[in-house]
Amino acid sequence: MTVKVAINGYGTIGKRVADAVAAQDDMEVIGVTKTRPSFGCDLAVRKGYPLYCTYDDPERISAFADAGYACGGGISDLLAVADVVVDCSPGKVGASNMERYKAAGVKWIFQGGEKHATTGRSYTSCANHADNLGAEGTRVVSCNTTGLSRTLVPLLEACGSISVECTMIRRAADPGDSKKGPINAITPVLKVPSHHGPDVMTVRPDIDITSMAVAVPTTIMHMHAIVVTLPDGHGMTTSSVLDLWRQQPRVVLMHGGDTGITSTAEVMEFARDIGRTWGDLHEIFVWEDGVKVEGNKVWYFQAIHQESDVVPENVDAIRALMGTESDWRASVARTDAAIAVFNGLA
Amino acid sequence: MTVKVAINGYGTIGKRVADAVAAQDDMEVIGVTKTRPSFGCDLAVRKGYPLYCTYDDPERISAFADAGYACGGGISDLLAVADVVVDCSPGKVGASNMERYKAAGVKWIFQGGEKHATTGRSYTSCANHADNLGAEGTRVVSCNTTGLSRTLVPLLEACGSISVECTMIRRAADPGDSKKGPINAITPVLKVPSHHGPDVMTVRPDIDITSMAVAVPTTIMHMHAIVVTLPDGHGMTTSSVLDLWRQQPRVVLMHGGDTGITSTAEVMEFARDIGRTWGDLHEIFVWEDGVKVEGNKVWYFQAIHQESDVVPENVDAIRALMGTESDWRASVARTDAAIAVFNGLA
Amino acid sequence: MTVKVAINGYGTIGKRVADAVAAQDDMEVIGVTKTRPSFGCDLAVRKGYPLYCTYDDPERISAFADAGYACGGGISDLLAVADVVVDCSPGKVGASNMERYKAAGVKWIFQGGEKHATTGRSYTSCANHADNLGAEGTRVVSCNTTGLSRTLVPLLEACGSISVECTMIRRAADPGDSKKGPINAITPVLKVPSHHGPDVMTVRPDIDITSMAVAVPTTIMHMHAIVVTLPDGHGMTTSSVLDLWRQQPRVVLMHGGDTGITSTAEVMEFARDIGRTWGDLHEIFVWEDGVKVEGNKVWYFQAIHQESDVVPENVDAIRALMGTESDWRASVARTDAAIAVFNGLA
Amino acid sequence: MTVKVAINGYGTIGKRVADAVAAQDDMEVIGVTKTRPSFGCDLAVRKGYPLYCTYDDPERISAFADAGYACGGGISDLLAVADVVVDCSPGKVGASNMERYKAAGVKWIFQGGEKHATTGRSYTSCANHADNLGAEGTRVVSCNTTGLSRTLVPLLEACGSISVECTMIRRAADPGDSKKGPINAITPVLKVPSHHGPDVMTVRPDIDITSMAVAVPTTIMHMHAIVVTLPDGHGMTTSSVLDLWRQQPRVVLMHGGDTGITSTAEVMEFARDIGRTWGDLHEIFVWEDGVKVEGNKVWYFQAIHQESDVVPENVDAIRALMGTESDWRASVARTDAAIAVFNGLA
Repeated sequence: MTVKVAINGYGTIGKRVADAVAAQDDMEVIGVTKTRPSFGCDLAVRKGYPLYCTYDDPERISAFADAGYACGGGISDLLAVADVVVDCSPGKVGASNMERYKAAGVKWIFQGGEKHATTGRSYTSCANHADNLGAEGTRVVSCNTTGLSRTLVPLLEACGSISVECTMIRRAADPGDSKKGPINAITPVLKVPSHHGPDVMTVRPDIDITSMAVAVPTTIMHMHAIVVTLPDGHGMTTSSVLDLWRQQPRVVLMHGGDTGITSTAEVMEFARDIGRTWGDLHEIFVWEDGVKVEGNKVWYFQAIHQESDVVPENVDAIRALMGTESDWRASVARTDAAIAVFNGLA
Repeated sequence: MTVKVAINGYGTIGKRVADAVAAQDDMEVIGVTKTRPSFGCDLAVRKGYPLYCTYDDPERISAFADAGYACGGGISDLLAVADVVVDCSPGKVGASNMERYKAAGVKWIFQGGEKHATTGRSYTSCANHADNLGAEGTRVVSCNTTGLSRTLVPLLEACGSISVECTMIRRAADPGDSKKGPINAITPVLKVPSHHGPDVMTVRPDIDITSMAVAVPTTIMHMHAIVVTLPDGHGMTTSSVLDLWRQQPRVVLMHGGDTGITSTAEVMEFARDIGRTWGDLHEIFVWEDGVKVEGNKVWYFQAIHQESDVVPENVDAIRALMGTESDWRASVARTDAAIAVFNGLA
Repeated sequence: MTVKVAINGYGTIGKRVADAVAAQDDMEVIGVTKTRPSFGCDLAVRKGYPLYCTYDDPERISAFADAGYACGGGISDLLAVADVVVDCSPGKVGASNMERYKAAGVKWIFQGGEKHATTGRSYTSCANHADNLGAEGTRVVSCNTTGLSRTLVPLLEACGSISVECTMIRRAADPGDSKKGPINAITPVLKVPSHHGPDVMTVRPDIDITSMAVAVPTTIMHMHAIVVTLPDGHGMTTSSVLDLWRQQPRVVLMHGGDTGITSTAEVMEFARDIGRTWGDLHEIFVWEDGVKVEGNKVWYFQAIHQESDVVPENVDAIRALMGTESDWRASVARTDAAIAVFNGLA
Repeated sequence: MTVKVAINGYGTIGKRVADAVAAQDDMEVIGVTKTRPSFGCDLAVRKGYPLYCTYDDPERISAFADAGYACGGGISDLLAVADVVVDCSPGKVGASNMERYKAAGVKWIFQGGEKHATTGRSYTSCANHADNLGAEGTRVVSCNTTGLSRTLVPLLEACGSISVECTMIRRAADPGDSKKGPINAITPVLKVPSHHGPDVMTVRPDIDITSMAVAVPTTIMHMHAIVVTLPDGHGMTTSSVLDLWRQQPRVVLMHGGDTGITSTAEVMEFARDIGRTWGDLHEIFVWEDGVKVEGNKVWYFQAIHQESDVVPENVDAIRALMGTESDWRASVARTDAAIAVFNGLA
């Protein structure tokens, strides 16, 4: 059986999730939506994804044909042929969409822009895949929360309990966005502690975490500066922590040093070399020479590609909801192998 | 016959030229050089390009094996099996390399970082392909000069003569470079007029052109603000100029406006959507609503992807030197079709 | 007689004009307006400028007292005691304000954000002071137009006629603005030629000028790249052009070179050293080693401090309207001497 | 008695310290040094500070006269008439300079660029003024350490003990520097924990602190994201912490919110409004709505003007070394009152 996946919202995240789904052999993209005939439609056509209108309004639907795009109808037409919908629409419209999805009898996946309270359930592959098996719907957490889970869950599982302080140095705008600033300033998120870190507890309530956040004038990646307090008698060393992460899927460890990866600029250049579309880096990037265990503390930096790290989690979440793969590591391996092949990598 | 191509210098330009050559069915990459075992070697290995050392020094050569990379020998070993070498080493080492290439009996191609005086011959596909047929060696001009040729040559050919003022607003550092500034300033190139525009005259001496240049805090593209003076009785209109460029290979015309491509950020996002490796845009980007003909003047803006626009010109230049394709439009069509296929595009 | 000056709008420009007026011995600030009790009110209080409300609405007026600020009343109360009002409110509200000023019988000065058509009259000290003598009101042109007039008028007067192409590389946001982008892009102004250059013709119709403009990710200064075509037989040399500008008030000539002023960052650092409040540079900055005369062409770069170069022009414009100084050079000398003294400079 | 102060190194910090010293009525600037006749000499001349050469080399000294600057001789000539020297030369030359100062029998003050080990003694006004009374020499700690001391010392003194994690988001280059990047990246300081936080312990060994640091593409201020752990039974509330800082000299508390100071851009605009030369902000800026006490934790953000916050500490350090004021609060009050007057503020 091939799972039929609808993508509601074909933008920054939606276009990436569509490709990742299309690369799998157990699922297919049966349609993507746009609010109106615009730029992104050409991409969907080029990729061969059937186009639908985000609304059921006949006037809006016919606008696509007028602009020269074949349109399969409104969102209801798309939901009628889907098993699961990945909602990649802008945040805050989730609640109303959810009712529609329930009525249509399809499973749904929201993105991190929605609140946990809306869905009552959240998802990260390595954190709680099993808890999501067969569920009606879930929320794939944000890029930051996903990144934190990837490196914190193995620490938690190795040590039994951890306590975390994270400072998030966030990119202020995405690469394709030329409207937002600041050009030359640092903007603090004044609500302290911030909501970012605690969101990890929606997928792993036993991680004790607080966070602070600032936005800075860069477009390419977020950076996390993290201090973890391990329990007494933890037995971890810098080297054993590095080993944990080497065995963790979707975490990349590389060297900084004089000739290595000195900043997020070189991380992104490395990602472009890998050759995934859009220069994406699904993996969380950790500097191996920026990790240190001393006493009960672990310090480390990680860089997050905000446009893409959640993309493979959406694929795994589909398998969780459909109950087609109960082992998270098996799903991750399958997802990642397919994505790499799709991009022409060995 | 398959032309055997050596790439001397596997960096920003070299890695791109290698892929473009490998995508063609009439040429192959027989080796790429690195000065020492480093980051870029992994990429060459992954792509399957034989690795050589930039030097013939046995100690330097054996350093590759010590670091775990198979190395085919020094530059002389590579030249011994090559028909043509594309020199993508950093500027200013060209003159000494040229003697080596001559001695080895291979044809050579330098990049725009070298001076025209070094080679006595320069190349842009649309400007002077025929003049380079069968030549011993040539220089593919810089990203800026290539971009100017693509839009100016058709104007020149349509009107008989043109006079040009160009202001170049240059990106101050490449995306992978985190050392260079400025962070918050504009830096003028105080030598006026600058060398950039007149370099066009090395491929098309009948274009009368001067230029000025500034560097600005962006990494992604150069921008040109251009004013062309046409001869009396030119007969051109805004619409006929746009038509000229629509028929010109490697020029993309798109709309700005409210919902279109408002800046180089959106141009690069469009390029990422196209899906070429590194998010490259080989084409020169012209805003169609930023073009105007009035009296004898034409105003327009064009954006240049400094990392990649010269890449396909190197492929065409190989065909010119080898004499395997005398028609520039035929070579361009062949080059571009292969590159697109290589990147998985329809 | 001391001219009583009202400042309608105490923001980026208004706060600077207020200080410049207060520094003169032939005029005084009799009040400044704010739309509501906010941040800027503290500055006005500290400087000793009477505060008024931008509106005559009693509720809005009393809000000032509620917030602890003494408020002299509404705009009508301020106009009742003023001889002239400098309107520094945001652009596009000028037309309606003008009626109010006329009704109140005060002279008015608008800023470059308003259109010439609104006032039918524009002003730059060196360009047309005499034409504004005794006028009812005028418009001090924008920072860019003011900068162009300062360097072009002397060329025009020396040569009889000039033709100009200017490319404006504009700062995308002011230093205190953290909302506007782009962070990493260049944005062209697609209306070509742009409105910026031709605005010079509102103060000097005999300058033939067109312009193009882009916005770049910097906050501190605009840069102009200018090519002037002189008439045949002009007799100018690089050195004689530099001499013209050395004799021109409010133009600063300095060296770039290796150890000099290499970018707008160092220009602004020089301005901070001078010690004017806000690190302002009223002068237009020209790189003397970035000027060249060759044939009939003059190339040069100039940097414009967008927040302050028009400030002294407002003072001179007050004298023009009031008819208190008919010689522009005399007014400029008086204005500048007072401003320098005000800032504690010799 | 007026203390005679020499400034060795008249650059970013030196020029500011000179003005701050000159503003006091119990000390005077008897000379400043430059390595050679250059840009900064004009500023010294304009301010009326006697110029000396950094070296005793007669050739270098006479170069000043050749360039038209009166020069009082070499560093030895300056030291011969000084009571104390403030060394503002670039870091790492301190050790050799110290021997010279000792030999000349003058007291010395180094800046934070030197290591504590060089001097064996460090200084921040609020942390350890008394410990420096009558000492032969000391080191005024870096801008970051100074900033941390100002907000942490009062917490320490109120609670008896504190434990601190600080993430430093550093500006990558100063405003006048157009060479350094990155333009679009975040650069982590891979040595974790970083040296920045623990430097606080050179002035207050009883503060338990670790830190991490990143550099970001901004020029204007550093930002600190700080989490303090208070001892059990601390009794502090958000409001009592704010009160502590309101009573602390050289700490400014302001509001963010919708209409307040949302980023370092607005902080610097506020500083420009205050009117100190160079738009300096000697005070540490804390967002009052970014402070929270919960359980044993305190979270807060502070912004540091890296060019100027240490300037008044140098003045206080002079008084400590000379033994002319034993009470730190008295010295601070005297210093700050004089600086404000010097800048024309009420």
